[in-house]
Amino acid sequence: MSNYLSDINGVDDFKKVKFNKLDELAAEIREFLIENIARTGGHLASNLGTVELAMALHYYLNSPRDKIIWDVGHQAYTHKILTGRRDCFNSLRQKDGISGYPKCGESPHDILGVGHSSTSISAACGLALAKKQLKDKGDIYAVIGDGSLTGGMAFEALNHAGDIQADINVILNDNEMSIAGNVGALSNYLSKLRSDPKIKRVKEDIEFLINKIPRIGSTISGTVERVKNALKYSFIQGVLFEEFGFKYLGPIDGHNIEELIKYFKEAEAFSGPVMLHVLTKKGRGYPPAEENPDQFHGVGPFNIADGSSKSKKTRASYSQVFGESLSRLAAEDNKIVGVTAAMPAGTGMNIFAENYADRLYDVGIAEQHAVTMSTGLAKGGLKPVCAIYSTFLQRAYDQVIHDVAIQNVDLTLALDRAGIVGNDGETHQGVFDFSFLRAIPNLLLMAPKDAAQLQDMLYTAVNYQGPAILRYPRGSVAGDYQPKEFSQLEIAKAEELIEIKADTQLTIIAIGSTVYPSQKAAEILNNNGYKTALIDARFVKPLDEKMILKAAEKSENILIVEEQVLAGGFSSAILELLNDSKLKLPYIKRLGISDEFVTQGEMAEMRSKYDLDGRGILKNALQMLDQNREAKSLWPKKND
Amino acid sequence: MSNYLSDINGVDDFKKVKFNKLDELAAEIREFLIENIARTGGHLASNLGTVELAMALHYYLNSPRDKIIWDVGHQAYTHKILTGRRDCFNSLRQKDGISGYPKCGESPHDILGVGHSSTSISAACGLALAKKQLKDKGDIYAVIGDGSLTGGMAFEALNHAGDIQADINVILNDNEMSIAGNVGALSNYLSKLRSDPKIKRVKEDIEFLINKIPRIGSTISGTVERVKNALKYSFIQGVLFEEFGFKYLGPIDGHNIEELIKYFKEAEAFSGPVMLHVLTKKGRGYPPAEENPDQFHGVGPFNIADGSSKSKKTRASYSQVFGESLSRLAAEDNKIVGVTAAMPAGTGMNIFAENYADRLYDVGIAEQHAVTMSTGLAKGGLKPVCAIYSTFLQRAYDQVIHDVAIQNVDLTLALDRAGIVGNDGETHQGVFDFSFLRAIPNLLLMAPKDAAQLQDMLYTAVNYQGPAILRYPRGSVAGDYQPKEFSQLEIAKAEELIEIKADTQLTIIAIGSTVYPSQKAAEILNNNGYKTALIDARFVKPLDEKMILKAAEKSENILIVEEQVLAGGFSSAILELLNDSKLKLPYIKRLGISDEFVTQGEMAEMRSKYDLDGRGILKNALQMLDQNREAKSLWPKKND
Repeated sequence: MSNYLSDINGVDDFKKVKFNKLDELAAEIREFLIENIARTGGHLASNLGTVELAMALHYYLNSPRDKIIWDVGHQAYTHKILTGRRDCFNSLRQKDGISGYPKCGESPHDILGVGHSSTSISAACGLALAKKQLKDKGDIYAVIGDGSLTGGMAFEALNHAGDIQADINVILNDNEMSIAGNVGALSNYLSKLRSDPKIKRVKEDIEFLINKIPRIGSTISGTVERVKNALKYSFIQGVLFEEFGFKYLGPIDGHNIEELIKYFKEAEAFSGPVMLHVLTKKGRGYPPAEENPDQFHGVGPFNIADGSSKSKKTRASYSQVFGESLSRLAAEDNKIVGVTAAMPAGTGMNIFAENYADRLYDVGIAEQHAVTMSTGLAKGGLKPVCAIYSTFLQRAYDQVIHDVAIQNVDLTLALDRAGIVGNDGETHQGVFDFSFLRAIPNLLLMAPKDAAQLQDMLYTAVNYQGPAILRYPRGSVAGDYQPKEFSQLEIAKAEELIEIKADTQLTIIAIGSTVYPSQKAAEILNNNGYKTALIDARFVKPLDEKMILKAAEKSENILIVEEQVLAGGFSSAILELLNDSKLKLPYIKRLGISDEFVTQGEMAEMRSKYDLDGRGILKNALQMLDQNREAKSLWPKKND
Repeated sequence: MSNYLSDINGVDDFKKVKFNKLDELAAEIREFLIENIARTGGHLASNLGTVELAMALHYYLNSPRDKIIWDVGHQAYTHKILTGRRDCFNSLRQKDGISGYPKCGESPHDILGVGHSSTSISAACGLALAKKQLKDKGDIYAVIGDGSLTGGMAFEALNHAGDIQADINVILNDNEMSIAGNVGALSNYLSKLRSDPKIKRVKEDIEFLINKIPRIGSTISGTVERVKNALKYSFIQGVLFEEFGFKYLGPIDGHNIEELIKYFKEAEAFSGPVMLHVLTKKGRGYPPAEENPDQFHGVGPFNIADGSSKSKKTRASYSQVFGESLSRLAAEDNKIVGVTAAMPAGTGMNIFAENYADRLYDVGIAEQHAVTMSTGLAKGGLKPVCAIYSTFLQRAYDQVIHDVAIQNVDLTLALDRAGIVGNDGETHQGVFDFSFLRAIPNLLLMAPKDAAQLQDMLYTAVNYQGPAILRYPRGSVAGDYQPKEFSQLEIAKAEELIEIKADTQLTIIAIGSTVYPSQKAAEILNNNGYKTALIDARFVKPLDEKMILKAAEKSENILIVEEQVLAGGFSSAILELLNDSKLKLPYIKRLGISDEFVTQGEMAEMRSKYDLDGRGILKNALQMLDQNREAKSLWPKKND
């Protein structure tokens, strides 16, 4: 195999590679990607699809004077390699390593930090307007997938960019996928553009035909011109984008660098917005990923030979428990329907769909629509359960206020990936939801500590009269998982896991993912002679006021633990309650995430960083109880 | 004049009106609307535009079995009149009166409570899916303006509805306006559809032409069929909507009931989604509103004869001070640009545009795009100031986190209409922003107490390195307004308006709109022998920790006052600070909005309801200081 890659430490090196050697380099990059991602995990399929596209862009453009914005950013690995970060790939997505997404500060070539979808055209639009006003130079390219294009924000930007004729080039990276199979009318439209092999021949036919139309008098003379336009529009394809004021170029073979660059040059001829419709194949060059791009979207370490996962079979995930529980509930109640925004597998809705495909609505990357459509479903007499990652519900915040809470509608929002999310880093953390949701009247807000409680909370939510939300972490469940008989939880009722007694020195109040590690810490304390009680709050809104006031009255010390930012979250709600109760307050310590964005790293590492694991909770508890003791001396060796 | 209206106490009465009398009734309704809105204020222009449309819908359909969803809802007055609420119009938008928007609970005909734009197609989609699954009957109509269609959420819903062929009818109420003139490529497209008078004639021409195309052998036989489709698509117009899977019907004269109903019948023939393109005129039938629909969008009481406002010339509004201040800053710094989402007049950006039209970007109803485009502008070297109503920033919450705060970009967000908004009611309250914003790292968050401070905060924000947000109320400024020399505020520095002394009994900590009434209350207390100090916090994030800790150490009582929900807001931030400081805490009382949606009413009425005026603050302060005193006895008569 050739060896160009090892000499590339930046775009200048890359540009020295001879044009006719680029395909060899592409093969090297693919091999590099597969080997690295097999070791570290990461986004495989999307990155294998954009090797030539990233190469063509950097070969033709002068980044960072020319600006490349990667939408979502899970396809920018080749961009990272070409811009001098090849040697950092062993730290990809690891704590203190390079990000799996473009990230400002990591390289001047990363124009915009990113992670969520559909933002690139807006950012490009702003850059283009700034360029115009400041009379700067440089081309602006946004690379957006057909999946991301279903997000309403992308449409807002298209609509505006077309109107003001912003000088941007939008590369529609059409791989017929979002993460799962793509949905939406636009997708059908793209499919039509893609699938017509006769486009070029038809263009020629048309000219021939037009010339055959006889001149038949003045009554339709104006019509002939309109007919020509009609034909032009319909057969040049892309008419939809042309109606939005974009020049449409394509479809373009996204794995042919020469063809890509030819079209980039063609795009230069237009001063307004250009849409370059580029066809790529997810997983290109690695058969297991080509065959199952969905499965190889984001992967853990795997065996290159067959694509099999290197991870040991782990415990059930919260998503799985959610999906299975929803299926069981749906079996009993045919009014239950599921809603997902392009995340059927991520949320466990694929499990629900195994039996109830006709009761699952996948709306595409469109969280706003997902939430308000759920309101419509509920108003129409169904019981919708809409599963969204906590970080993506931020996209539908107004819909939760305006269409769910004010309407006080009967529906369930299931927030997956709440709390610390691990390797995806800052953009994907689900650490704000307690704060932004508990401010809203009418909401019921819960967080399960384990698989059993998730089942009961889902059951409780579905049967609750009004909007109910449960939020649970990414990854494996705490506790054993087996399907259990559903129990209705008493609303706003906490559980006293270790009783508050007359001689209790410390009460830990935990919720969701912090309950098990708090229990571990409490048990160690109690085994060492300290008197510790433990409350599983279960509900953030409404709080179990009686239980919390009891804890405050009976304990000298209270430790509140939440996997959430401390500003305005669960512990803040408790402070409000205690303050407004006018009780004499105990000494209260709050454990949670400080006022900073949580960076990437394994979930366990990052939980440890914020003292949200058993050891951290123990340390903080002990500091409250006995300033001379070191937590380490109590933490058992085998739990290290 | 005829008198049908007085007999209409519900849709059944309305349906008894003879078809050939409907135009007379329409004239009566218009007169009723003008007279009532001239007295109470309300949305005039939009409602005059939809008289015949609402009549046609209710005449043809059987509401509420058939469901009519009004997007935004500021055009539903005729719907309210026909569904039995005529006699409630004297209480329109007043405290305890009928809402200016459709509102669940007010009538079974109000299917969805509403106030924000672009939600109707999503809700209709959900209703249609529920209908299908439950095998219910009834048609589902969404009425959406061309302005609302620029919101990305509407596109998400179109894209999905077209794909799944949801059985809905979308009435595109095209009045060539959002609130201000409409923007966007879609608007240009609609304009093309509207302006072509030859549509029908051309259709006939086309068929004639197609028949003239000679059969010229097998090489192009397939082409002929494609040409026919091409012609059909291009000349039937609405091709864009057809590409989205909608059947397009129109344009339709929206002031012709007979024509409207004819098209409703035609729409019945299709089982999938239908787009009915209806042309209406804002302000129809009232010349002052027809001429200035922008000015007559939302109005206070006015004189019918000439449309002049009945309101006394009030003091400057915060929006005006913002607009004038931004203009003055822009004169000194040509990198300053403005961004608005379809609210140039509402936000005061129209003032900025008087001198800097080429530096104001109105993106249409598209808050998500507005915020992220601002990030692009900043990354491109400009200093964007994006003005958005607090309630509409909820639409761009993820963009604030993902594209502004994580990127730590230099831009300013100016939140107008923060706090209690008055007559628009629940959907428009700006009472959550402290909670949802202060959870986010990297943000600077301020609230001015008056016109002078607004000027300084805007100046401070524009010069701040990082994302800066100021939020200020709807309506008239507190304090005198005159343009002042800008001063840079020290970041996170509160102002001690009445000094904390050794004998201070109570310190009031206020922010923004609550500073002036707190000052009034404090002065009355001090004039009556109580020792009251007053802090204007100015910054919610970061807090002036030193000042607040000083207050807590030196005062036995602290009263915190904010025009915001109490859950997670400003007072909550202070509780967190004080708790985490481990100080011995004083007695702290929090005044703000309790856990409920604030209903409609005059701003002063609603502030009074939550004790956020001087009298309420005095009452609460006095309760803390002296349980035997009644606030009333201290409040001076002239301030009643």
